[in-house]
Amino acid sequence: MSNHSEAPVTPVDAYEPPYYVAVFSAVRTQDQSGFSETNARMEDLVKDIPGFLGMDHAQTPGGLGITVGYFRDADALTEWRTNAEHRAAQKRGRVEWYESYTLHVAKVERSHGFVREQSTTAR
Amino acid sequence: MSNHSEAPVTPVDAYEPPYYVAVFSAVRTQDQSGFSETNARMEDLVKDIPGFLGMDHAQTPGGLGITVGYFRDADALTEWRTNAEHRAAQKRGRVEWYESYTLHVAKVERSHGFVREQSTTAR
Repeated sequence: MSNHSEAPVTPVDAYEPPYYVAVFSAVRTQDQSGFSETNARMEDLVKDIPGFLGMDHAQTPGGLGITVGYFRDADALTEWRTNAEHRAAQKRGRVEWYESYTLHVAKVERSHGFVREQSTTAR
Repeated sequence: MSNHSEAPVTPVDAYEPPYYVAVFSAVRTQDQSGFSETNARMEDLVKDIPGFLGMDHAQTPGGLGITVGYFRDADALTEWRTNAEHRAAQKRGRVEWYESYTLHVAKVERSHGFVREQSTTAR
């Protein structure tokens, strides 16, 4: 939590269902010119969507990247999907940044979170 | 595709909805003794579950790991969740391997895949 520019220290919370997840799994191309700037802009933009709950991202070096966006309802997701700047970024992604990707949009039926108690000593 | 021990080269396909995703986002502890062996065993075990469709994983070094399992229906997920060996691994994970994690189980309503055409030259 001390450094927001690095990977998050805890995953997004388990919210009370129902809510939506958008799972985006992608393999990127070699030429990533402009990707970082656009990605940062998208991360800012999505936070303005009413009903946006959070986002988790993990990236295996040289391998798969997975981004999971969490949204309160289908309307919030629709607003994000149809955002003009986001659509332009998606299009550029298909032309330049992605070798392949898959998107799964799903309604959460069950969720569960675990956080280790600080006072306990594991093992 | 040439090296199955490395990160996958393409994400799991977009199946015809409905199907289920189990999104597991986790931060691990420093002591990972035994994790690799158990993880490999779980990856083998889940493949025997009827209705298991595939799994994607990404791991940011020192950061968040995201595993997404894809299942044909809720029954397949229940079988995996209640598998005795899997339950023992989950328990050990809470005691030893995970600082925190969140699990989201969700029914896919929409999916979409993209694969770059080999013959086209991007940019």
